[in-house]
Amino acid sequence: MEGKIPVAILGATGTVGQKFIVLLQDHPWFEITELAASPRSAGKTYGEACSWKQDMPLPREIAEKTVLAAGDALESRILFSGMDSSVAGPLEEHYAEEGHVVVSNAKNHRTDPDVPLIIPEVNADHFEITKKQKYRGVIVTNSNCVVMPMAMVLAPLHQAFGVEWVQVTSMQAISGAGYPGVPSYDILGNVIPFIAGEEPKVEIETQKILGTIDGDVIVPADFIVSAQCNRVPVVDGHTENISVKFKKKPTVEEVKTILTEWKAMPQEKKLPSAPANPVIVFEEEDRPQPARDLWLQSGMSACVGRIRECPIGDIKMVVMGHNTVRGAAGAAILNAEAYVSLGYLD
Amino acid sequence: MEGKIPVAILGATGTVGQKFIVLLQDHPWFEITELAASPRSAGKTYGEACSWKQDMPLPREIAEKTVLAAGDALESRILFSGMDSSVAGPLEEHYAEEGHVVVSNAKNHRTDPDVPLIIPEVNADHFEITKKQKYRGVIVTNSNCVVMPMAMVLAPLHQAFGVEWVQVTSMQAISGAGYPGVPSYDILGNVIPFIAGEEPKVEIETQKILGTIDGDVIVPADFIVSAQCNRVPVVDGHTENISVKFKKKPTVEEVKTILTEWKAMPQEKKLPSAPANPVIVFEEEDRPQPARDLWLQSGMSACVGRIRECPIGDIKMVVMGHNTVRGAAGAAILNAEAYVSLGYLD
Amino acid sequence: MEGKIPVAILGATGTVGQKFIVLLQDHPWFEITELAASPRSAGKTYGEACSWKQDMPLPREIAEKTVLAAGDALESRILFSGMDSSVAGPLEEHYAEEGHVVVSNAKNHRTDPDVPLIIPEVNADHFEITKKQKYRGVIVTNSNCVVMPMAMVLAPLHQAFGVEWVQVTSMQAISGAGYPGVPSYDILGNVIPFIAGEEPKVEIETQKILGTIDGDVIVPADFIVSAQCNRVPVVDGHTENISVKFKKKPTVEEVKTILTEWKAMPQEKKLPSAPANPVIVFEEEDRPQPARDLWLQSGMSACVGRIRECPIGDIKMVVMGHNTVRGAAGAAILNAEAYVSLGYLD
Amino acid sequence: MEGKIPVAILGATGTVGQKFIVLLQDHPWFEITELAASPRSAGKTYGEACSWKQDMPLPREIAEKTVLAAGDALESRILFSGMDSSVAGPLEEHYAEEGHVVVSNAKNHRTDPDVPLIIPEVNADHFEITKKQKYRGVIVTNSNCVVMPMAMVLAPLHQAFGVEWVQVTSMQAISGAGYPGVPSYDILGNVIPFIAGEEPKVEIETQKILGTIDGDVIVPADFIVSAQCNRVPVVDGHTENISVKFKKKPTVEEVKTILTEWKAMPQEKKLPSAPANPVIVFEEEDRPQPARDLWLQSGMSACVGRIRECPIGDIKMVVMGHNTVRGAAGAAILNAEAYVSLGYLD
Repeated sequence: MEGKIPVAILGATGTVGQKFIVLLQDHPWFEITELAASPRSAGKTYGEACSWKQDMPLPREIAEKTVLAAGDALESRILFSGMDSSVAGPLEEHYAEEGHVVVSNAKNHRTDPDVPLIIPEVNADHFEITKKQKYRGVIVTNSNCVVMPMAMVLAPLHQAFGVEWVQVTSMQAISGAGYPGVPSYDILGNVIPFIAGEEPKVEIETQKILGTIDGDVIVPADFIVSAQCNRVPVVDGHTENISVKFKKKPTVEEVKTILTEWKAMPQEKKLPSAPANPVIVFEEEDRPQPARDLWLQSGMSACVGRIRECPIGDIKMVVMGHNTVRGAAGAAILNAEAYVSLGYLD
Repeated sequence: MEGKIPVAILGATGTVGQKFIVLLQDHPWFEITELAASPRSAGKTYGEACSWKQDMPLPREIAEKTVLAAGDALESRILFSGMDSSVAGPLEEHYAEEGHVVVSNAKNHRTDPDVPLIIPEVNADHFEITKKQKYRGVIVTNSNCVVMPMAMVLAPLHQAFGVEWVQVTSMQAISGAGYPGVPSYDILGNVIPFIAGEEPKVEIETQKILGTIDGDVIVPADFIVSAQCNRVPVVDGHTENISVKFKKKPTVEEVKTILTEWKAMPQEKKLPSAPANPVIVFEEEDRPQPARDLWLQSGMSACVGRIRECPIGDIKMVVMGHNTVRGAAGAAILNAEAYVSLGYLD
Repeated sequence: MEGKIPVAILGATGTVGQKFIVLLQDHPWFEITELAASPRSAGKTYGEACSWKQDMPLPREIAEKTVLAAGDALESRILFSGMDSSVAGPLEEHYAEEGHVVVSNAKNHRTDPDVPLIIPEVNADHFEITKKQKYRGVIVTNSNCVVMPMAMVLAPLHQAFGVEWVQVTSMQAISGAGYPGVPSYDILGNVIPFIAGEEPKVEIETQKILGTIDGDVIVPADFIVSAQCNRVPVVDGHTENISVKFKKKPTVEEVKTILTEWKAMPQEKKLPSAPANPVIVFEEEDRPQPARDLWLQSGMSACVGRIRECPIGDIKMVVMGHNTVRGAAGAAILNAEAYVSLGYLD
Repeated sequence: MEGKIPVAILGATGTVGQKFIVLLQDHPWFEITELAASPRSAGKTYGEACSWKQDMPLPREIAEKTVLAAGDALESRILFSGMDSSVAGPLEEHYAEEGHVVVSNAKNHRTDPDVPLIIPEVNADHFEITKKQKYRGVIVTNSNCVVMPMAMVLAPLHQAFGVEWVQVTSMQAISGAGYPGVPSYDILGNVIPFIAGEEPKVEIETQKILGTIDGDVIVPADFIVSAQCNRVPVVDGHTENISVKFKKKPTVEEVKTILTEWKAMPQEKKLPSAPANPVIVFEEEDRPQPARDLWLQSGMSACVGRIRECPIGDIKMVVMGHNTVRGAAGAAILNAEAYVSLGYLD
């Protein structure tokens, strides 16, 4: 590769947009050359337009860039979209129409039958469906932040034992709601046992990711998913309690072995953002925990623990993942790396 | 009833003991006459011995009482036990042997086949088993704080439709761990997906409460319970996501109607601590919540919401209860009221 | 008094408006007859218009009332204003013009020289200034929630020893910011060392409350106030560390005695919302605390502890008060009671 | 320097001991060769003896080391002491007697007149006093975690303008209390306005650090310090509101300039753990904040913001520092680096 690939960030001032900027600092393949946001921000420098909320200081060269209006013509081949779902739908189509590779974290096109919901470890073969898209360019999406770590854990198990059903109860961090997001009055010392629109998303996206391409569409996997989603007073890191029924019942040891040893395309190709292990298995009885394990392997792995028998399903366990890294911006970046690595950009 | 019934509190300085004192203030039937605690506290006034952590100021007449040593001879007929499980086992037996009615919140005797685990709305008939106990007095217990609201919700549904299995994922408040309990470093901004010994307790106690007396023992209900227990940064109020499979599938409306209309012995007899409705059904999509609904009906009801179909079980819902009121001291007091009201004390 | 005095609530759907409704339930003198809010809510029932966030269920008779538009003609003599400061200014003037007694919690008119900032224990004589107002009716305000408990503590000390300066550092609860207020992402596990506009308010209002009437205006007290305001992850209850320099240095014991024994007009007249003691003095070295002491005397007292010598000022101490009760709606209600009790309404 | 300097960690299993291990990973000068802890842990591997609570996984080579008993003979020249103050006093003396350089974070010897309380940017000249110590080796300490960022901010200002008095109100993170430390029941949604023994420590240590060597002892600076210390529900990062009176009143701009430009011995000698800027000055009106700014310059800088005039003192401002990095283990490591760099080890 000669020179870095120029990339743009759509929705650059938002929560996900800011995370793209953090995660793309010093990226070996990609270089941020354009920042686009709402017309309200356009024309200002990024430093003026953005209420920066990240741990690292805003890099000076980013702060000084002039923000473009989303919809403006862009020069970058790859566009990372962290736009709000209220505007992402038509804008992403527009850019795909214009020939760009839109790597999106927005939910708008996730259910389009010809738009793949990619986790490169799980379904890199779904990139093929992009050839059926009607656009000059393409739209590639990543999954919801709850689905991400669960799908990573289910994928190798589904292949080995066939998932029949999965029950998941989530305890989700407030960063998943964006900014300003959840009012503190609602969540300090509280649990909110409802997140608008989340449960159907979890159910549908899990089936799609583990589905198969059939002609022009992705056919969802035929197992059942039942989700119960809760918000808890945690800043980053979604914790999930899941119970799985398999077609062929595995032992606890088999599950541990398969998850521990699992490696896939991003690991084999050593993609820059790929974790060494897509799944980290804990033996400690009280792990994983968001406050302790969030940043293992740079927040790009699914953490799993308490793997044990379930008297109703076959296996129950605790899954935890970094919702704004592997569950959002980091996922999109890994998707772009996989897309490039597999030769689709050429 | 002439005059109030004198009662003693065992483990009076602890978290549950303090709650007994709060809830027995101005009780129409019971009067605290004796306070017992560990030998370390014995001989001191209660005000000296206790690190009072309740919202209301410590009543002066309680503060001035001299603390007795647990094990000392007591005069009260009814003893409320909030003793730590590390010592409660033999001490409760001792007092039962001495002829007292030990109404306990400790876990030690909950699994004894001749000791009833009472929720008066659910299984007041289990008091009968106390006649089979080997003691001159009796031991009566209440359930674990997670089991309590779930069993209250399941009871009328089990009667109507027959529970086949129930999956429960709990998000438990830190007050359930006593004091000092959970270190703040472990729980601030975190979820701990494990509570030592809790899951088996939830599974076994639920079956026992909904079981039936057969001769000298209580035979557990034969449905399956699978529990996953988590600690969350909430002070009071356990939230639970449950999914239930019934022998005969009910509609969502049938479940709501049965739970809304359900009244039982404590309501009929108007026991002083009985809530008007044992179960409060919410129609709002984001309720119940511990921070909002904890104190409805003085913390003595089970709150339930989001009653909806489950694609794996039949019905899923959110249950919430006050873990230190209806889930602990309040439960024991209601048990004592039911015991007295049903004529067992005479 | 024959029959209750009809009152209206302006800004009825907001945080303070809801608190008015809670605190006026079963009030012996006042009866809520009208509810007014923004045009967006007008015409709906209160139950439809309001996102009720209080611990007690919304009373049915309130829920069924039709919300009026703020600005509409009202029949109630007394109007409690919990309107947002973005609209309260002219609307309160309008209603005063129309002859109503506007008892306001909004900040807009607090600095008007002829509008009194009343704490009935401290400056009930300031009601006199309302006679100089240009309105047919009157506007009466209460102080900022940080000022309230501090001014209550300073008042009797100022009278006895003369305050020279006071430094206050506040740790303020998030409920003080209204709803939605502070985003959880900003405050979970964090301290925000800034609250827009708060420090000048604290400085100016403290001086005004402890000031004196001179002709047509209130002349502020001439001591210096320096405030540093912080937001902390607490739901209700502002904690303040203060240091005071007096003209005549008191002993720690003198301060404790004066604060403990202090009673004033609301206590003497036994106003319905008056606390038995305006100031509660703690001897425990780690009190007061919002989580423990918030509801003492129904949240209407200032709590003070750790009274000790300061090597820079004379005395330092910890002050804590319920910011949405005594610091907002409860203060306004007590003001109305004092106004009525002193015969101004006739 | 040929080869790394072997170091030992005393109190290796505790909170500070664990932080030493984290911060000494890949240290260019020091290598952990010995781990000592209480007799209870001795003989076990570190992995067995320690309840590891850090973000990074426990390094394997550390996990496999056998823990020695504190008091055993050690071979390392430099011993980092994170021992609990209940045992640190005599053990540190013992090791100093044996010829070791004890670089301690414990409070026990901080007030010994011949033991320096070092912040290398502030008083590296105080190392000289170690020559007066009675031990074959030496004891060097660092300050309390509240004092650290404040002393760093005061040092250059004291030199330029002469501090007359300083008032500080702290809002301290729970990690400062060690583990298990503060019970969650005491701090969730609460402020505790008292930390045992903390205020005198803050007052005395600040004066000592800014004092001067006179013969065999360190003479404390003669300005007055008044501290009010609070615990807040924050995991890491102490926030402080301070007000300072100077002998010669500076302008706000002068203060900003001096703090921004200040560099000292650790920066000049480029010590491995030295921050590029000992003090980071914020212009944003709501910064610094622990949740945002904790890790700037690896947690080794004092963060300061809201520098403005005080109507009582001259200047007030907000100071924030990482209490377990620059306020504890990181401070000790920088002290050791300075000690070595200045040639004292030779």
